[in-house]
Amino acid sequence: MVVVMESHATEEQIQAVIEKLREMGFSTHRSTGVTRTVIGAIGDKTGLDERDLQVMEGVHEVVRISEPYKLVSRTFRSENTVIRIRDVEIGGDQVVVMAGPCSVESRDQIVGIAECVSKAGARILRGGAFKPRSSPYSFQGMGEEGLKLLRQAADRFGMLVVTEVMDRSQIPLVTEYADIFQTGARNMQNFSLLRELGKTRKPVFLKRGMAATIEEWLMAAEYVMSEGNHQVMLCERGIRTFETYTRNTLDISAIPVVHKLSHLPVIADPSHGTGIRDKVLPMARAAVAAGADGVMIEVHNDPAHALSDGAQALFPEQFDELMRELRIIVPALNRTI
Amino acid sequence: MVVVMESHATEEQIQAVIEKLREMGFSTHRSTGVTRTVIGAIGDKTGLDERDLQVMEGVHEVVRISEPYKLVSRTFRSENTVIRIRDVEIGGDQVVVMAGPCSVESRDQIVGIAECVSKAGARILRGGAFKPRSSPYSFQGMGEEGLKLLRQAADRFGMLVVTEVMDRSQIPLVTEYADIFQTGARNMQNFSLLRELGKTRKPVFLKRGMAATIEEWLMAAEYVMSEGNHQVMLCERGIRTFETYTRNTLDISAIPVVHKLSHLPVIADPSHGTGIRDKVLPMARAAVAAGADGVMIEVHNDPAHALSDGAQALFPEQFDELMRELRIIVPALNRTI
Amino acid sequence: MVVVMESHATEEQIQAVIEKLREMGFSTHRSTGVTRTVIGAIGDKTGLDERDLQVMEGVHEVVRISEPYKLVSRTFRSENTVIRIRDVEIGGDQVVVMAGPCSVESRDQIVGIAECVSKAGARILRGGAFKPRSSPYSFQGMGEEGLKLLRQAADRFGMLVVTEVMDRSQIPLVTEYADIFQTGARNMQNFSLLRELGKTRKPVFLKRGMAATIEEWLMAAEYVMSEGNHQVMLCERGIRTFETYTRNTLDISAIPVVHKLSHLPVIADPSHGTGIRDKVLPMARAAVAAGADGVMIEVHNDPAHALSDGAQALFPEQFDELMRELRIIVPALNRTI
Amino acid sequence: MVVVMESHATEEQIQAVIEKLREMGFSTHRSTGVTRTVIGAIGDKTGLDERDLQVMEGVHEVVRISEPYKLVSRTFRSENTVIRIRDVEIGGDQVVVMAGPCSVESRDQIVGIAECVSKAGARILRGGAFKPRSSPYSFQGMGEEGLKLLRQAADRFGMLVVTEVMDRSQIPLVTEYADIFQTGARNMQNFSLLRELGKTRKPVFLKRGMAATIEEWLMAAEYVMSEGNHQVMLCERGIRTFETYTRNTLDISAIPVVHKLSHLPVIADPSHGTGIRDKVLPMARAAVAAGADGVMIEVHNDPAHALSDGAQALFPEQFDELMRELRIIVPALNRTI
Repeated sequence: MVVVMESHATEEQIQAVIEKLREMGFSTHRSTGVTRTVIGAIGDKTGLDERDLQVMEGVHEVVRISEPYKLVSRTFRSENTVIRIRDVEIGGDQVVVMAGPCSVESRDQIVGIAECVSKAGARILRGGAFKPRSSPYSFQGMGEEGLKLLRQAADRFGMLVVTEVMDRSQIPLVTEYADIFQTGARNMQNFSLLRELGKTRKPVFLKRGMAATIEEWLMAAEYVMSEGNHQVMLCERGIRTFETYTRNTLDISAIPVVHKLSHLPVIADPSHGTGIRDKVLPMARAAVAAGADGVMIEVHNDPAHALSDGAQALFPEQFDELMRELRIIVPALNRTI
Repeated sequence: MVVVMESHATEEQIQAVIEKLREMGFSTHRSTGVTRTVIGAIGDKTGLDERDLQVMEGVHEVVRISEPYKLVSRTFRSENTVIRIRDVEIGGDQVVVMAGPCSVESRDQIVGIAECVSKAGARILRGGAFKPRSSPYSFQGMGEEGLKLLRQAADRFGMLVVTEVMDRSQIPLVTEYADIFQTGARNMQNFSLLRELGKTRKPVFLKRGMAATIEEWLMAAEYVMSEGNHQVMLCERGIRTFETYTRNTLDISAIPVVHKLSHLPVIADPSHGTGIRDKVLPMARAAVAAGADGVMIEVHNDPAHALSDGAQALFPEQFDELMRELRIIVPALNRTI
Repeated sequence: MVVVMESHATEEQIQAVIEKLREMGFSTHRSTGVTRTVIGAIGDKTGLDERDLQVMEGVHEVVRISEPYKLVSRTFRSENTVIRIRDVEIGGDQVVVMAGPCSVESRDQIVGIAECVSKAGARILRGGAFKPRSSPYSFQGMGEEGLKLLRQAADRFGMLVVTEVMDRSQIPLVTEYADIFQTGARNMQNFSLLRELGKTRKPVFLKRGMAATIEEWLMAAEYVMSEGNHQVMLCERGIRTFETYTRNTLDISAIPVVHKLSHLPVIADPSHGTGIRDKVLPMARAAVAAGADGVMIEVHNDPAHALSDGAQALFPEQFDELMRELRIIVPALNRTI
Repeated sequence: MVVVMESHATEEQIQAVIEKLREMGFSTHRSTGVTRTVIGAIGDKTGLDERDLQVMEGVHEVVRISEPYKLVSRTFRSENTVIRIRDVEIGGDQVVVMAGPCSVESRDQIVGIAECVSKAGARILRGGAFKPRSSPYSFQGMGEEGLKLLRQAADRFGMLVVTEVMDRSQIPLVTEYADIFQTGARNMQNFSLLRELGKTRKPVFLKRGMAATIEEWLMAAEYVMSEGNHQVMLCERGIRTFETYTRNTLDISAIPVVHKLSHLPVIADPSHGTGIRDKVLPMARAAVAAGADGVMIEVHNDPAHALSDGAQALFPEQFDELMRELRIIVPALNRTI
């Protein structure tokens, strides 16, 4: 923490700040310049609100000099975290592909899709059983029946399952069927859910909130890790900006930024990130080229009749084409797929 | 729904769109111009994804011509909704003031604050018992004990209680102590919570999400109302923009916009909207001048030692000053306070 | 400037940073903590790019501790700047009202509008002669003829003239007719124009860019002032956000923020800030209630046939109503109108 | 244009809208549904402000059904525009690389950089001679001397020159030295500059404004093309969002979006798009993988002493590495480099 005083700050005001910092548990260090006094404060104080200093008399600016997170940071752990689930590694040399429909709709649908995406090279099957929709009048998912169908389809083709858990109360149910818990963008700051997931021992796939800064996203991962579960992967899925041609703006630059700040794997979701089918291929290629450890892709055998988000689902043959393109790209990053 | 075809669209493509629209339950209406064909679709289809049309061959653009919400709309109900709780009316001629600390911290704290804000004219006492904090290492609230103290303090000074419910599972507990359920900005799209609140008969104070469009905010209110609870008030509390001098950008223009689109009352929260004490007075005045039906203001007897958000809490004497200023302003809107 | 080193930074890296800072002209101050070394740098170096330090090996974060502007700052001048033009004061106790059409369209139009706005209390007449339009196919203004008509209309009713100068080359022409140079939002960082205006002795009305931070806006004012012209007023006219119900989001909180950082007067433009007539009154009231030193309002005698921006122009009787409302509000701020 | 009336609109109001549309030159088409009347308007009216209809009594919503631009549109020209300058093609099968320093600083500097980037495969040399800086106290460029040095260096290695023209008045000067006119992000809506460039016969490299929507960017290209110069290439260089880890958010998805809407080539500038060296490589790879027709990269032989933007300049060996990686990626798009 560095507190910069106003140039006209009185000695009394300076002393009040020093005292306040000590009260907060910092050791302080005063540096009196020609125009201003600057007070450095050393200490390891997470969970502190720097505005408490900012509103003090004579204070010009307060600057936090350490990240508010610990466990997610490269400072805490310098090597990449690699999450191993059976024979799949996430965050290692191989780029991991997760694919499947937005929602599980029927046995035939999920089995058919699982077959074609696994043939093309996807290792993890995605599919929603509980669908939070922005309209109360839209399809809300198949519930537990959907989870069962998803698990069966994955098992048949030797795939892992990732699926969303919407609420703390659903954790026991989802645990039975999933290999990876997915949390949705709207739940990124559902701290009671994050805490509870932190007490489980299954990997967590944490989507970035639509308006979340990278720092807030990492803080959400910290919530999970602070309870003991260190298997977290971060998923960039688009942020909200003024541009409306695409549903969201997929923040590709977040991939190298997170890789620098944290040791956790980063996955990109170009399907939600763009919201429209013909932008998914270019953005999936871009994400992998930027260094993503994996991509999550929505694929549907009959997108025109999908019960949710059909417009952003790839046709199976587009998914094959994408896999072919990614195989060309990954050697540029010394990776395989 | 209006579907605009590409200028080079084939007759076959046009027919496919018409058929799809009929399948969706619309009656259609074709208008063939010199350069393009435009297909109008009349029908009352909420919960529809217009992207399903947009991805069809030959389609240039799809335009939704009715709002996705019904019950919250002025089309559905043209007079203002006035919510009556005991002798307090929200959405009527009187501007309602809700005030209190960010968190309930102790009996003395909450009683002391309730006393001074009620004297100054606040009718509703606010205070958090469960605090979702962006850091897992920060103060997380007093829980039920906080609710009790809040209720006792309010009763002593004849005030109503508004407090946050974080999770569906907390509803029974909060019902015992609160007059108004508050939902937080991060929970604006926690649809299972909204649904459950829709089944209660207590008013809901629905904060706008930090990145929520006005339409999404109204859709969230629709979730509550679609379950039968029509007592919803909307709270503007700042949106996230590129500007970082203030914590959020209080979107004052949302006040007249919502008043035009909906019959529900609109409250402003300049404390969270700005995040810093000396901006609260000007922004509270601005919100009332723009037509807000009320304001929610954080006040603390000892902000320097508040356990959360002290930097944005007013001193009691600042709150008195604010009430004095608002009394001057409201006659410009033919209102009282 | 404070440079925070990585916790694992080597002594060599620390020395390289210290040397670089000295080379840049700073006196440095090292503070070695348990986990990190922090280097304070004192000196008055505007025009410096802190990223040059940020990319050095071992550097964790670089924090600038002084504003990049000087002359616009309250540190430089603590009392409010009051701009006096004939008998009008901008930035003093009186709230100043500027009104008129978007574009000057004819003698009758501008005289008619000048008459009604001056009667209602506006002291300054606005009107565009050169109209930069986002489409090359739209009306582009009357040019010099428009300036003449504007001046004549203003003189007839004892008003001042504010009008836009689009380009450095137009300054001599506009000088002949205007009392105040207006610069448009798209020109906020047209530095050659700003510099040139800084060499004149007429006040400058500097609109905030649609995506400009408050700091960038103040830096634009610094460009003008650094050439010797200290008569700058800042105009908040809406920023671009994800919300699209209003054309822009009028950032009302920028008013108290700028008043804290700078001594310059702040005006609000709710006409461009909202883009639609029925939002202008509430937002003008809000701006004044938040402390704006003035408002600029578009008024047209026949908005339905205005050649530009008719949709955001008030009818004369709405302008009368607005003036009546503002007269009620200003005593809350100890001001007159 | 489609005008959707309120459900309670009177016949009189409907007639007024129809009349207004005819007055504007549209042929209209009325469609009376059970709940609402919808009026379709066919005609080719660019430069129209739909808000003029929106403010009419009884109007619920107005929807524009054609793009406001013509010449830039794929509807106007379906094949890709390929710009040929000597033996370089921009927009063809080959991905074009433009590289060089932010500012020309000396003969040695520019010659040294030109040598290494041309060896590595860059065909076009970039470098600024006039530098608009956000601070009036920063280095402002070498002026004409810089242009000369840039031309000489390019000629020596058989390269083309792209450099920024800041102002209409600089066009004759820059024409002497440059092969391609660059317009800066802050000038994207400097319409008098765009118009004037439209009268020249040299290609224009048009940077997207920091807060410009894709539509506004295309409209800026329309300004150039409407004067007769059809050789425009569009440069994505990052937009302003709430995220501040990177200077801007490079909107990679704009690349496929523009390719769908327009026939013009799209180039990406990851140096300005991220603002920091170690993000340039991943984002350049991502842009090319997403389909960019080229990239513009800042390279400096001694970034630590660059007079501007050194922090975002690659070292020559990083540029070599980038070229090696891009060569691996481009076959995935059936392109060469």
